[in-house]
Amino acid sequence: MTKGELLYEGKAKRIYSVVGKPDLIWQEFKNSLTAFNGVKKGEFDIKGSLNRDICAKIFRYLEQNGLATHMVEILNAHVMITKKLQMIPLEIVVRNRVAGSLKKKFDLVEGDKIEPPLVEFYYKKDELNDPFMSDDQIVMMKILNHNQILHLKKMGLLINQHLKIFFEKIGIDLVDFKVEMGFDISDEVVLADEISPDSCRLWDIKTNEKLDKDRFRYDLGDVKMGYSEIGSRIQKVWGSL
Amino acid sequence: MTKGELLYEGKAKRIYSVVGKPDLIWQEFKNSLTAFNGVKKGEFDIKGSLNRDICAKIFRYLEQNGLATHMVEILNAHVMITKKLQMIPLEIVVRNRVAGSLKKKFDLVEGDKIEPPLVEFYYKKDELNDPFMSDDQIVMMKILNHNQILHLKKMGLLINQHLKIFFEKIGIDLVDFKVEMGFDISDEVVLADEISPDSCRLWDIKTNEKLDKDRFRYDLGDVKMGYSEIGSRIQKVWGSL
Repeated sequence: MTKGELLYEGKAKRIYSVVGKPDLIWQEFKNSLTAFNGVKKGEFDIKGSLNRDICAKIFRYLEQNGLATHMVEILNAHVMITKKLQMIPLEIVVRNRVAGSLKKKFDLVEGDKIEPPLVEFYYKKDELNDPFMSDDQIVMMKILNHNQILHLKKMGLLINQHLKIFFEKIGIDLVDFKVEMGFDISDEVVLADEISPDSCRLWDIKTNEKLDKDRFRYDLGDVKMGYSEIGSRIQKVWGSL
Repeated sequence: MTKGELLYEGKAKRIYSVVGKPDLIWQEFKNSLTAFNGVKKGEFDIKGSLNRDICAKIFRYLEQNGLATHMVEILNAHVMITKKLQMIPLEIVVRNRVAGSLKKKFDLVEGDKIEPPLVEFYYKKDELNDPFMSDDQIVMMKILNHNQILHLKKMGLLINQHLKIFFEKIGIDLVDFKVEMGFDISDEVVLADEISPDSCRLWDIKTNEKLDKDRFRYDLGDVKMGYSEIGSRIQKVWGSL
């Protein structure tokens, strides 16, 4: 595999082509952290490789449970080679407990259980501040049709079921998470982007300590410690990569 | 009918009980106008009676077309006696063209046709700034179940069909409108609140001139003229009350 040209630089990843492989993508996980649509910025040294490792471990687990992800292989410390997909411009959020923007929007109590879990869609468009969308708005904007939306919701809930078990085994309560999806060449919906402490809310089951990006968002203390704790628990219980 | 105690003062109406009639409500249409969740305030002298007349005419038209409204009778210049309902805390917005918050949210072109019409729900809660809700959030908040939401959408679209014809006949393009609904004693969903130039976007079909509350919101000129124009066209084509 040889890194090709830079296609896109996101807030947490750099995306390159792969020389001679037009159906693959070279993803580099960056050390930078951003929050509030890029307004708050930070970084720590091993963040890129840690998130790549955590994400690879989770994607492999989901694959073993029958869910298609875009991961092809991992390279070096912070690279993941993925399938090239036609990305769906939505952030799909699944919530098991009240936190973050949902708490604020409806003035709810943080940590309250949401049963059944709630699936939300946000339009992935930085200039518009990633607005929350209803199913009917997604259809109006010609992003997906109603059947495709239902399929995405089912996939989100299925990923949630598996992730909850994955994290429960390492003493972590999965509060919520964000994923992105895309269509592969056979028009199948495939899990893309990443699943990591950047994109999940992860609370210690016993102490409720937040071990995810909220440490950075709300200055709750050593961010690197939180991410490393997740990484080392995963390695201890689920084995190394 | 005798006016009872003041139950609630809203931005455009005062709501009283009716002495000896616990199943009825005394609604007074006020002369005040507000916009942007009450931040901008104004008024003009005949606004209350004009809106009461326009609303009564529209409700009667919808009733004649088989749609249940809460209107019982009209009194004096600015009073409407209505059924007492168990109100659903949602604003139901139906859109035929891009305007207002939808234009801003997705950076769309004002006036572009929306086909099929879009139904949106906003949580009626001033303190929270009436946030936009998805169907799944409405279910999560235990406001309605999925079947009830579907029923409300159907009702919204049916009201839209009739309103479009009503306004087309007076040379007006119905761009969008907001309604509220409630359950009556037999648990039937009934159209409530009001339909008036306060709650609709109404553009002259030939000139595209805005004749509704946007004149007030965006300082587009004589607000009273716009509302009066709507009132007099309705009277000319649909007859007086």
